[in-house]
This record gives sequence, C-alpha cells and structure tokens, in this order.
Amino acid sequence: MISIAPDGTQYQVLTDFEIDSSFQEILTATKNAKLHSQEIVVVQGLGFVGTALASVVANCTNDDGKQSYFVIGVDLNTENSYWKIGKILEGKSPIGSPDPQINSAIHNAVYVNKNLTATASLSAYEIADVIVVDIPLDVKNIDNFKKEDIQINIDSFSDSIRTIGKRMMPDALVLIETTVPVGTTKKIVLPILEEERRKRGITSEVLLAHSYERVMPGPNYFDSIRNFWRVMSAVNDNSKVAAEKFLNKIINTEKYPLTKLEDTYSSELAKILENSYRAMNIAFMYEWTLMAENIGVNLFAVVEAIKMRKGTHDNIRYPGFGVGGYCLTKDSFLAQWSLENLFHSQIELSMTVAALRINYNMPLHVLDMMSEYFQNNTNILRVLLCGISYLPNLSDTRNSPSQVFVEGAIQKGIKINLHDPHVHKWFEKPDLEINNTLDKFSDLDCMIFAVGHQEYLRYEIKTFRKVLKPGALVIDAQNVLNDKLAIDLHNAGYKV
Amino acid sequence: MISIAPDGTQYQVLTDFEIDSSFQEILTATKNAKLHSQEIVVVQGLGFVGTALASVVANCTNDDGKQSYFVIGVDLNTENSYWKIGKILEGKSPIGSPDPQINSAIHNAVYVNKNLTATASLSAYEIADVIVVDIPLDVKNIDNFKKEDIQINIDSFSDSIRTIGKRMMPDALVLIETTVPVGTTKKIVLPILEEERRKRGITSEVLLAHSYERVMPGPNYFDSIRNFWRVMSAVNDNSKVAAEKFLNKIINTEKYPLTKLEDTYSSELAKILENSYRAMNIAFMYEWTLMAENIGVNLFAVVEAIKMRKGTHDNIRYPGFGVGGYCLTKDSFLAQWSLENLFHSQIELSMTVAALRINYNMPLHVLDMMSEYFQNNTNILRVLLCGISYLPNLSDTRNSPSQVFVEGAIQKGIKINLHDPHVHKWFEKPDLEINNTLDKFSDLDCMIFAVGHQEYLRYEIKTFRKVLKPGALVIDAQNVLNDKLAIDLHNAGYKV
Repeated sequence: MISIAPDGTQYQVLTDFEIDSSFQEILTATKNAKLHSQEIVVVQGLGFVGTALASVVANCTNDDGKQSYFVIGVDLNTENSYWKIGKILEGKSPIGSPDPQINSAIHNAVYVNKNLTATASLSAYEIADVIVVDIPLDVKNIDNFKKEDIQINIDSFSDSIRTIGKRMMPDALVLIETTVPVGTTKKIVLPILEEERRKRGITSEVLLAHSYERVMPGPNYFDSIRNFWRVMSAVNDNSKVAAEKFLNKIINTEKYPLTKLEDTYSSELAKILENSYRAMNIAFMYEWTLMAENIGVNLFAVVEAIKMRKGTHDNIRYPGFGVGGYCLTKDSFLAQWSLENLFHSQIELSMTVAALRINYNMPLHVLDMMSEYFQNNTNILRVLLCGISYLPNLSDTRNSPSQVFVEGAIQKGIKINLHDPHVHKWFEKPDLEINNTLDKFSDLDCMIFAVGHQEYLRYEIKTFRKVLKPGALVIDAQNVLNDKLAIDLHNAGYKV
Repeated sequence: MISIAPDGTQYQVLTDFEIDSSFQEILTATKNAKLHSQEIVVVQGLGFVGTALASVVANCTNDDGKQSYFVIGVDLNTENSYWKIGKILEGKSPIGSPDPQINSAIHNAVYVNKNLTATASLSAYEIADVIVVDIPLDVKNIDNFKKEDIQINIDSFSDSIRTIGKRMMPDALVLIETTVPVGTTKKIVLPILEEERRKRGITSEVLLAHSYERVMPGPNYFDSIRNFWRVMSAVNDNSKVAAEKFLNKIINTEKYPLTKLEDTYSSELAKILENSYRAMNIAFMYEWTLMAENIGVNLFAVVEAIKMRKGTHDNIRYPGFGVGGYCLTKDSFLAQWSLENLFHSQIELSMTVAALRINYNMPLHVLDMMSEYFQNNTNILRVLLCGISYLPNLSDTRNSPSQVFVEGAIQKGIKINLHDPHVHKWFEKPDLEINNTLDKFSDLDCMIFAVGHQEYLRYEIKTFRKVLKPGALVIDAQNVLNDKLAIDLHNAGYKV
C-alpha cells in the first residue's frame, strides 16, 4: 500500500514487523536522550498543529544550549496518513508552508540534533514524559446548521485517548491541544484515562491539562506556536504545575505571558468563542455587503475608514467571498454540541450558528449575482474562478469557499474553469483540473477573484485584455483590483 | 415659561423681542470678529455633539495664536431646550462631563476670547460662513424591532434643514454631523437646500458635506472631537474643498488623518456600520453569557484570555447588563429605514436588527434570573439596583438598560430601589427616587450591579454586611466585584 503526500511523493506503508523494528531504533535513541537529560515528548497527530508543535518542541534548548526534549511524532500507518511520518523521517515538513523557519527547524532537529523522529508504533506512548494530543476532532456535516443534526467524530477521538490510557506512564502529562467540545477534557478524556489506568492498577492522580493552539499555517507558522499568546487550564493542581512548566519551556512566555484559566471548561470555551467571534464578525459584514451593493457603495473603503478607530473597531472585517479552513467553519458547532450532549442543556447558540450558515452561503451569493447578471444564460458561459485555497498565498484548500461555489455552479449546470497559482491538486475535488497559469484562457465571459493571492494583486490591464471577451464581467470579492486598475478595466469596457 | 437644566438651574424662556435685541449684540460682535478675519460658525443644536463641537471650534487658533472662528450656538427657545443657550451664555457647558477641558474651553471662549455665544435667533444662519448641523434625528420606537414599524423623526429634521436653506448665505458651507439614514444628505438635505435657495433666486452650487462625529461624553469629551479620527464626504468638489479646509482646522488631522470617502452614502453608511458593529459584538456575547452561566464558567476571565490576541480579537466585548445611550440603541434602525424609504430596497439587515433586540432584552434576562432564584416570590423582596446611567462614572441616562430593567420589574409587580452616585434626577423616569448613598438601606434580599461606577469598585465586604440580609443574592453584571471580594461574600454566606 502506498501513501501519497500532497506534493506527489510516494511512501510505502509499513508492515507491523517494520514498525516494530524501526521503533527499536527509536528506543535506542531515547535511551541515549535520557542520558542527556532530555525528556521524551510524543506528539499524537502530525497535521497542521502537530507538525508545528513537534518542530517547536524539538528546537527548545536549555540554558547550556542543549536540546531539552526528544520528540516523537506519532501518526497512523495508513494510506491517508503514513506520508506524514515519511516526510518527518526525511527531515521535511509534512505541511507545506511559506515559512522557512518550520522547514529548517525540522531539518535541523532530524539531521543535526537528531532529537526528532516519527513512528506509527503505539509503543511510543509507553516511553513519553509528555503526550500532546493534536489529532483532529471533526464535525462531519459542516453544511447542516440544525442544532439537532450536528455530528461529531467523538468516537475516533475517544479511541485515540484510550490508546494513550492503555500505554502511558503513570506520571506522564497528557496535554490536549485539539479543539474539543466544551467539557471534553473533564467529561470524556479524564474518565477514559482513569478507567484504563485503573485496569492497569495505576491509582495515582492523572496529569491532564488543556491548552489550545492558535496555529496559522502561513508565513509565521513556526512563530504562531513559539511566539504567541497561550491559554491553559488543568484538571488538578499537579497537572497545572506540570503543564505550566512544559509550556513555559516551549513558548516564549516572557514576551507572550501564559493565561491560566480556572478550569478546563473555561479554556475549551475560550478557544471556541474566539473562533466564533471571528466567524460572527465575518458573517455580520454579509448583510452590509448586500446593502452596499444595492446602494452602490464601496464597502472596502468604508471599512477602512472605520478601522481607523484603533482599539474599538479595528477587528471589523472586510467584505469577502466567504470563510474556509478547518476551524472557523466548524468550531461553533462543537459548543452547540457540547451544550446538548455534555451538559444536557437546551440553550441554543442561535446567532453563532446562524453566522456559520451565512458564511457558508456567502459564495453562493456571488454565484447568484453572476447568474442574475447573465440573466441565467450561464450554461454557455466561459467563467474562470481565480483562487481555490481558503487563504491568500497558501495551497490549503480545506473547506474553502471556492468549493461551495463550484459545487453550487455544478448544480446549476455552469461549468467553471479553475485557476490558482498555489494549488496543484485539489484534494477535496480531485477530478477537477486546476490551472496554475492563465496561458490557455481567452474570450472569458466572467472572471471571479475569490482569494487575494499576491499574484492576482500584480495583474495589469494587459493581463485582462488577453483573457477576457470584450465587455466581460469581473467580480472582485477580495479587493484584488486597486482603484486605478478598476477604473482602467471599466474604461476598457469591462463590467467590474 | 421656565427652562430647567439637569442641575436644577432655571432660565427664563425669552420673548421674541428679547431674542431679537440680544441678536443685535451678537451682530455687533460678529462685525468686529469679521474685522479680525474670523469666520462665523453656527452650530445648530447644542446637545452632546454640538456643545463639544462649539467649544472645539471656538478654541481653534491661527498660526499667530489668534482665534480662527467666532462661534454661535443655536438652539430652540423652548422649555426643553432654552437652558442650553442659558448655560453657554454663562460660560458653562450644557452637558455635564468629567472632562475639565470642555468646561475651561467654554469658559475661555465666552469670557476671555469672547468668540463663543448662543442664541435662539434664526438670523444667526444669515451671517454664517459655516453651518454645522448637530440636531438629533430620533428613532421614535427603539423598543420595536419590526422592519416595517421603524419610525423616524425625519420631518422635524427636514424642517431644521429648511430653516437653514431659507436663510443661509449663498456660499456658506453646510456640514451635516447628525447621524442620519444612509442617503439623507443627497436625497433629503440637498433637495431642500436647493429648493429654498432657488426660491431666493440663488443659482450657485450649494456647499454641502457630511462628516460624522465620534463624540464620547466621558473624561475625553473635548478630545473626542479635536484629537480623533474623522471621516468626511461631500456632494461636489467645491464642498469637498471647503469641508476639508474646515475640518483640517478644527481637528488635529496631522495626528489623526482625515479619511475622505467617495460620496455621502459611504460616510453615512460608515457611521451606522461602526455603531452596528459595536452593538452586534455586544449582542453576540449574550448567548455565550447564557452558556457560561449554564456550565458555570467565569466568562469575564475567558474574554480577558481572548483579548490577548491583539489586532484580531481585542474588540471582543465583556458580558454585561445591556446597552444604553443614544447611538447604539438606534443607529442600525436608520440603515434599515433608509433601505426601504430612500432606496426602495427590500433588503433586511436581519442580524443587525436582531442584535439591537437582543441588547434591549438583556436586562430582562437578569430580571428573569433573579425571579427564578427567588421562585417568583418577588413581590415581598427588597431589591437594590446599583447603577442607573448607561456608562460608568457618568450621569447620562439616555436609553439606559436599567430603565428596561425597572420597567420590566414594575410590570412583574416587583418594587426596585435605585442607587446611583452620579445620577441626581432620572429624566426619563422623573417619578422614581434615586439614592446617591447606601445609608438608608439594610436587610436587602438582592443587590444588582448594572453599571461599573468607580464607587462600586471600592465597595468592601463590610459595605455589603451593612446593607444585605444574611444569605442575600448579589448579581454582578459588570464584573464590579474582584475575585477576592466575591470569595469573601461567598464565605460570608451570600449568594454571588
């Protein structure tokens, strides 16, 4: 079985025997590490968060300049996941990032300091001093906004926790970084760990803490862990001490002081609330976008004027094409789910969930606008959607609004051409072809800017002349065109 | 007829003859001012905004240190309004403010520089170089959240504009500062001025601009005009030049650069959008308050943790008791009204208007919480509501959430005692007695903190022991109690 990385590299999934024997090598290395007073940190899950965290932890040094930790990344020996282990073993980041720091940190840790490795062997948990949980906890149906229909992959999350409970050392610290429904650490993780430890005859208090990450897989990927504010909480005093010690080591808490909250409910809630706040502020702009379009106001300029009020109004969001990514599209659901399932409460986070719905539907508004403009004669149109990822200058396409747009267009029978200089393969829509250049396009009826990639900001009037039909429509949902260019396009007879 | 100021001072409303003869004095003074190259600025409306603006304009100086303008405040010769003119004529601010700068600015202008006066005479408009419109434009029914029921005092606003059109000099600049429905400047003010000028045979282009204020009647009342960001727009190029010249003079635009927007729709929209943004962020916290109460989380601490994310999350609001004041309770209605009445659009600002409804109802949630706690045996309770104003450390009670609370309580048959160290008379509820001290209270069943006045922050455990019944309930909707005090109260047997 082959596991293929996003960049196309192929890795052979291992046999059980291969896993075991490679773990023997790790075991030897950790024994040596222990001799050098390094603690063993296991990171469960090598995704966007786990990768960054592993690289940061491996690069922590003591006052004498020696590495503080030996880090083992653990992921699954499956077609979908093994490539992440393969990447780390080659000293490369599984997650593509424009941040050179993340790549050099991993390269250094693997080849120079030799204190970072990866494995699919569960035996890793048996030798860990600290286990950081960075596995995903997915909402299955992020396109369904009914409170009672929210479905969460809580079973697979619980299984992963159980694996830890079955193998962890009695005094190892378990640190939950995954964004979880409020109450999960105390009501799900703690009972599972206690149950499995009890079965093993361990009676001592478990060390369990929650500290959520604020990773941004952009140009400051590494620093979004190391040099950023952190919030933590723990289930008891000893856990608090242990977690604080670990976080003070890996994070630059001198400059970004650690916020300690009273209990794990608080820090779990904080994470979801901060993402819901963000999602809400995006959704709020939607109805003002409709109003501004209706009365002919440039809302980008208006928002810029408002943002001048520093401290009270600078979080106001520009209008846009929608919201994508792993967090803002689903985190609010976790809070709603926990109210019903962990606290047996009937409270509805109506406004919060409505915001997610509005954000989800935002690209469909652009689709409607386009269809209306062409009086629904859209089946004969040549349309180019510029931007597939959910963030500018990145290849990350998770839950991107372009996906909602394209699915909506297909339903309407509109064929959409796709362009993105950063995305080579669209994992969520593998059958669709992505163009990295404009070379093959001409005579387009409509061009839509859905992402503010820097390449788009550099387009000139001649770029448009080459690809557009006379009088074609340009929809700029991300303020990609500057004022001058917009006027030039207008003067050249295009509708902007 | 007597006009009574909030502080109790009485002023005799004038006869027409008295108005005319006092205006003759002003006329003499302005002739002298003209000799000293001062321009005449008339401020229409001496409320919260007009007062501050008049004081700022009167204190503007040229490079040679001489006053740039002669300022005339105009208000109505009525029982409700004349006291504002009376105050200015005495060199005092009509609006009480803890900002010493505003009082000394007015005192200086009236007594030392003699370039600020006030009148009820409409002749003032005939000699003005600049007329600034600071009259209110009220929403009549801010407790009705149905789109079709929004009622606006547009007629009295239009009448005031007509008065200007009838008398203004042809090349005077009219600057609208009032928060108006989007489209008002171009679709209401401009046609009225043009019509009245046409009747007078004036054919030249009218000079008309819109620039909204961001006044805060708190400790920085004066600076909230002079040293704060401004947005402007105008109906034509000459107006733009004139308004820019005036604003560059009165506002410290070197430090707080002027934002010039394309058209008056944009700046009218900006004002309402920024207040709606604020109202929305307050409403958003409401459902999270419900959740936090339900699961027992201290939301103040959670929000503090989130606010650490400077630049993206520091506008998130603390939970509270509701929203009051003149702007946040009504501005969003103006946008909704203008869509229907000025743009014939069916767009609904649903989320925005829902936010106003949620904020309005927030104090009623506290009332319900209290009633529930006492199992609705509330008729025999002794309850003290601490805080009547809508902002801490101010006496301003306009649309305060405490009013909604008290009205709701009266409906339920609960008698509420009222306390506020800053409010001496409650204008909106003149029949209710306000206590400025706690002296007469003892054996209270419940004490509710609705405003974070500094006096409340200084309360100690012994303050509570004196006034509360054993086991009484303390509801702290504004995080007035610090952690230690909350624990002390709890230990003393009170329910917090």
